[in-house]
Amino acid sequence: MTLDEKIAQLIQLAVPFFEGAESAGLITGPMEAMGITRDTVANAGSVLGMAGAAEVIAVQRTHLENNRLGIPLLMMADIVHGFKTIFPVPLAIGCSWNMELAERSAEIAALEAAVSGVHVTYAPMADLVRDPRWGRVMESTGEDPHLNALFARAFVRGFQGSDLAGDMGRVAACVKHFAAYGAAEAGRDYNTVDMSERQLRQFYLQAYKAALDEGCEMVMTSFNTVDGIPATGNRRLMRDLLRKEWGFDGILISDWGAVRELIAHGIAADEREAALKSMEAGVDIEMMTPCYVNHLEELVKTGEVDEALIDEAVLRILTLKEKLGLFQQPYRAADPDREKEFVFSKEHRDAAYELALQSCVLLKNEGGVLPLRGNAKVALIGPFAASGDVLGPWSWTGSREDAVKLNQGLAAGLAAGSGKLYVAEGCGIMEHPTASQWEEALAAAHNAEVIVLALGEDSDMSGEAGCRADIRLPQAQLELVAKVKALGKPVVAVLFNGRPLDLHGVLDEADAVLEAWFPGSEAGRAIADLLLGHANPSGRLTMSFPYSVGQVPVYYNAFNTGRPQGAPDAQERYVSQYLDIPNEPLLPFGFGLGYSAFDYSDAAISSKTMKSDEELSISVTVTNTGEMAGMEAVQLYVRDLSGEVVRPVKELKDFRKIELQPGESKRVAFTLTEEQLRYYHSDLSLSSDAGAFIAFVGPNSKENTAMPFKLVK
Amino acid sequence: MTLDEKIAQLIQLAVPFFEGAESAGLITGPMEAMGITRDTVANAGSVLGMAGAAEVIAVQRTHLENNRLGIPLLMMADIVHGFKTIFPVPLAIGCSWNMELAERSAEIAALEAAVSGVHVTYAPMADLVRDPRWGRVMESTGEDPHLNALFARAFVRGFQGSDLAGDMGRVAACVKHFAAYGAAEAGRDYNTVDMSERQLRQFYLQAYKAALDEGCEMVMTSFNTVDGIPATGNRRLMRDLLRKEWGFDGILISDWGAVRELIAHGIAADEREAALKSMEAGVDIEMMTPCYVNHLEELVKTGEVDEALIDEAVLRILTLKEKLGLFQQPYRAADPDREKEFVFSKEHRDAAYELALQSCVLLKNEGGVLPLRGNAKVALIGPFAASGDVLGPWSWTGSREDAVKLNQGLAAGLAAGSGKLYVAEGCGIMEHPTASQWEEALAAAHNAEVIVLALGEDSDMSGEAGCRADIRLPQAQLELVAKVKALGKPVVAVLFNGRPLDLHGVLDEADAVLEAWFPGSEAGRAIADLLLGHANPSGRLTMSFPYSVGQVPVYYNAFNTGRPQGAPDAQERYVSQYLDIPNEPLLPFGFGLGYSAFDYSDAAISSKTMKSDEELSISVTVTNTGEMAGMEAVQLYVRDLSGEVVRPVKELKDFRKIELQPGESKRVAFTLTEEQLRYYHSDLSLSSDAGAFIAFVGPNSKENTAMPFKLVK
Repeated sequence: MTLDEKIAQLIQLAVPFFEGAESAGLITGPMEAMGITRDTVANAGSVLGMAGAAEVIAVQRTHLENNRLGIPLLMMADIVHGFKTIFPVPLAIGCSWNMELAERSAEIAALEAAVSGVHVTYAPMADLVRDPRWGRVMESTGEDPHLNALFARAFVRGFQGSDLAGDMGRVAACVKHFAAYGAAEAGRDYNTVDMSERQLRQFYLQAYKAALDEGCEMVMTSFNTVDGIPATGNRRLMRDLLRKEWGFDGILISDWGAVRELIAHGIAADEREAALKSMEAGVDIEMMTPCYVNHLEELVKTGEVDEALIDEAVLRILTLKEKLGLFQQPYRAADPDREKEFVFSKEHRDAAYELALQSCVLLKNEGGVLPLRGNAKVALIGPFAASGDVLGPWSWTGSREDAVKLNQGLAAGLAAGSGKLYVAEGCGIMEHPTASQWEEALAAAHNAEVIVLALGEDSDMSGEAGCRADIRLPQAQLELVAKVKALGKPVVAVLFNGRPLDLHGVLDEADAVLEAWFPGSEAGRAIADLLLGHANPSGRLTMSFPYSVGQVPVYYNAFNTGRPQGAPDAQERYVSQYLDIPNEPLLPFGFGLGYSAFDYSDAAISSKTMKSDEELSISVTVTNTGEMAGMEAVQLYVRDLSGEVVRPVKELKDFRKIELQPGESKRVAFTLTEEQLRYYHSDLSLSSDAGAFIAFVGPNSKENTAMPFKLVK
Repeated sequence: MTLDEKIAQLIQLAVPFFEGAESAGLITGPMEAMGITRDTVANAGSVLGMAGAAEVIAVQRTHLENNRLGIPLLMMADIVHGFKTIFPVPLAIGCSWNMELAERSAEIAALEAAVSGVHVTYAPMADLVRDPRWGRVMESTGEDPHLNALFARAFVRGFQGSDLAGDMGRVAACVKHFAAYGAAEAGRDYNTVDMSERQLRQFYLQAYKAALDEGCEMVMTSFNTVDGIPATGNRRLMRDLLRKEWGFDGILISDWGAVRELIAHGIAADEREAALKSMEAGVDIEMMTPCYVNHLEELVKTGEVDEALIDEAVLRILTLKEKLGLFQQPYRAADPDREKEFVFSKEHRDAAYELALQSCVLLKNEGGVLPLRGNAKVALIGPFAASGDVLGPWSWTGSREDAVKLNQGLAAGLAAGSGKLYVAEGCGIMEHPTASQWEEALAAAHNAEVIVLALGEDSDMSGEAGCRADIRLPQAQLELVAKVKALGKPVVAVLFNGRPLDLHGVLDEADAVLEAWFPGSEAGRAIADLLLGHANPSGRLTMSFPYSVGQVPVYYNAFNTGRPQGAPDAQERYVSQYLDIPNEPLLPFGFGLGYSAFDYSDAAISSKTMKSDEELSISVTVTNTGEMAGMEAVQLYVRDLSGEVVRPVKELKDFRKIELQPGESKRVAFTLTEEQLRYYHSDLSLSSDAGAFIAFVGPNSKENTAMPFKLVK
């Protein structure tokens, strides 16, 4: 390969550069401005955002005709929570606490994407998030490193399967955004991240590492700084940690434009330096900017970049192409017939339905307002009553028209039980009820026994760059809640949103609240079945819901401080607290209700002491005391009472999602080993300390039974 | 000295242990519970919070009678912004941008405290703060490391003078809280602090170091963790950085109870380990808990603590006693006669008045509503109209009764000009207007031409442990503003508060707003003179006022990110921003108005390039185009466009507070050297890089003239 040909492998351009670029004037326009020639495009290594079997086949065919060496293009795209069959957003999937369904969702997304010509997906996102202002919180599975790691693994297994070359229905996964993108200061996307390296390792890196341990083929750089240096130009993070320490030898790709953004960040004076720093850091593919293609050749000639670095990068790219079987089958699984067979199939939609059922979290249910009777007269009011905006951000390949709206799902469910449904919009997402909207809502409410409010944020209010400083429902909708509440009928609120919200004005006003997130293609069907009691809500929050935005960040695995509130010797004023709100979030991590009640009894620990080579067994009996079969996520937390550095007041160590019939009891036993008690010390070594611990079992991070034990060394 | 006697030097107890402890039952109560004996008290090294010449003399006399070796007690107290003569709170002093007045305030506080028997003050606080939720923000001079460093130096000079032994009217200073206490997570006091070491050095450590470079005798540990280890038990922070790297050999004292708090933090299993870790870290004096006195002897016997460590600590304590002249004059400056002469003297109060004048910040003045005419009819309405709560937190030695209330100051000012004043409370701090309060307010407003609203937070709403998640004025007062505004008369709001507030509901409603903070003993006099135009407001904010609490932290010296809002190539959505509020704070760092307008012209830079050994001169002409003499803080900022790590969009490098007569012009010239362009690199080395910079001169951090230059090496 010539140096030019090698460098061209390192560039990634979006679809328009490959498809009709000539007729769209791109070649004399944007491409010329970027310094990109026809030759570069002909030699390019990969494409961003292309999907559709016929289109992919056509582009690949043309490419191979023009490419001297016959190296096929890698087709990459953001397939985040489904391709055409859209699953709940990742934060909702997190709330399912169900790794099998999470894996299955990725497997289906991979199959639909693969037959549509996609080779690589930019997923999973393994970013830990503690700030609900940040718009991409919907793309994370939450605030817990252990749970995030499990989900990252499940998604990688689902996308890649166990044999990428042999199983053409899979795609390569690309874990993102390395590293710590979720810790953007003030919850503002792309903003500065700063933390100690110990904090980074203890909380933030775990899930990325888990994805790689699961065999994830690629890594994407994050937009943010890590200790003052943007990830994309961060040699210590990429070469030293990711490559050397972790041994990652797959492709490292920049996020969109992130190489050139080193200039705006202020660590590169120009595109040439941006290319130099990114190459030194070990970024193999530059997405959407031309720093590599315009400057690497010169940097090699001046000796600033060793050509061996470029060879390494090219080899990684060719290796993945080989792994994917592209040299043998350049169209891979792309097939218009199979596309029609698999994409948005009944089977796939049923899987999306099943995951949506388990992702919704029942936050409140007073006076038995839920489940609705099948023959109930129901008014469904609100901007989400008949909205197709239920797929959430990152669902560009999905179709809102094909999604089951809530009014459709409820109408079908009530028709089956000879109930009645009256539907009204009530107000806009941000627009206060008009007189006619309110009249319509009143008319709907008039004959109803119960009012279901469908409220939330539209999908542009979260997702990338979708950050909010105010995390309440929009004022217009809070007004609707108050007006509807004043009618005196039971009120159920169903929430569609991409972040934990400050729920004052809803949780206090409504009799029942179901957090539906963005449930995906089968939204209306799943929510209706939950509301009507055809299914029992079993979702549990994987992020704390703050009391107010002034409490952010608030997360369950925080530190005790030297002056904890509520300690036996705590003073009235001089403890770590606010004057005006509680320290506790409005709703804690792990929390969720259902239509059954689960009783915890006989919590036991196998020993009060544990040697390093021993295991502890921690067990508890869980009984379904309700009248409906239901699922419960039984949770195990541990607190290390004294460490070399401060340790969280609780850390999730394990959980078991179990199903219990009415009256049924199960004994749930967890095994705890010394390895699970290890943490990063001040010298960044990972080990455990002898001393006192507490194990907690229970239904969430707040309510649980404490069992002390000692680790003896 | 016996080991017991040495260890007793390391304990610090509060006044009640020394004064009437027997009769108050302390000896059989709290002292016994703490394991403290009469012997320990007799040998104790220092006392906390004692002031008053007669009392101090009596306690010292008794102590010397009971102390085998005749070692006098060190009397320490929190003299933060004045003793009896209370100056504005430090955040307000910061807004004066006046180092001479700041130094003078500390000098006066020292003199009043010294003649009242105090030897050491726990001040200055040099904590950098970016979060207005944190209650102790009022005790900081703001968000800028350079300005904080200058103020820390000024306070140290004022407290200590140049000859602590020879000048008995001074006290030793104790800089606090080492380190980074102001970065408490979520603005909750005592909460976790986590940041990279580079961030710590670049922003947070500078002001502590400046205090020590100025000769500050003592350092106090902070309550928070620094990289996972509470400061009080943090060997790397204290032994390695403070002692070895910085060469500090003075006394390191724990904050109140902070040694024992290592247990709650979870890095010590018990008091014994807390003592061990604190001693290893290098904490000489344990404040208010008995870990040292109960466990050090045993720790020495088991060999876990080298007695040499204790000897060192004792030597530091004795050295300070010697420096203060206590072995020769154990009562030092304590003198009931001099106490009467100096404390709260006319001269001191005039100094407090002068500093209050320069600390208030005029935030808005539309339609020429200010200054008030001397013959105006003024209604003064609000909970601070006649309140003595104008001293602010940390004014325990001051007297609210003796403070000039706003109604007193305004009444005197208006009487001189034959104006009229009508006063009404309007509402409580938190309590909505009652019918009778509103009637009274209406009556006051009825005959008035202009309404002055006196609003704010009471002093318990900031200060230690005074944290708020909602940083607006209390709802009751916002309601008062709206009701008063509806009367249709010009409205001036005067604000008393200890933090930057979200001023929506005030700044938009009132015609003029004066941020008075807590101005101290001469509050009413200074504010009245500013309102009446007898003095021209010249304060400038040293902390950004956020748009809302959902924007926190927001500070002027932030980083650009890779996708800055408003850049030439910025996209509409995919930039670092919120959907619902601006990125900019409501009021920027450096901002403040006056009754004069200052025109900036002919900004110039002496060269477009600068070699390492050269100086640049940056100059600008400032003209007072108003009709009143006034002061202006001319500000110089620099931006480093490309560094090895990301660099702030602006950094304050210098300023000049100048006074200009009407029509007068001055040429202000700043000198910039290579040293001022240094920053901490990723390897923690401090140096500058060749490359492009921008110098900015102007009246605040937002409005200024940019002048590019290059540093050549």
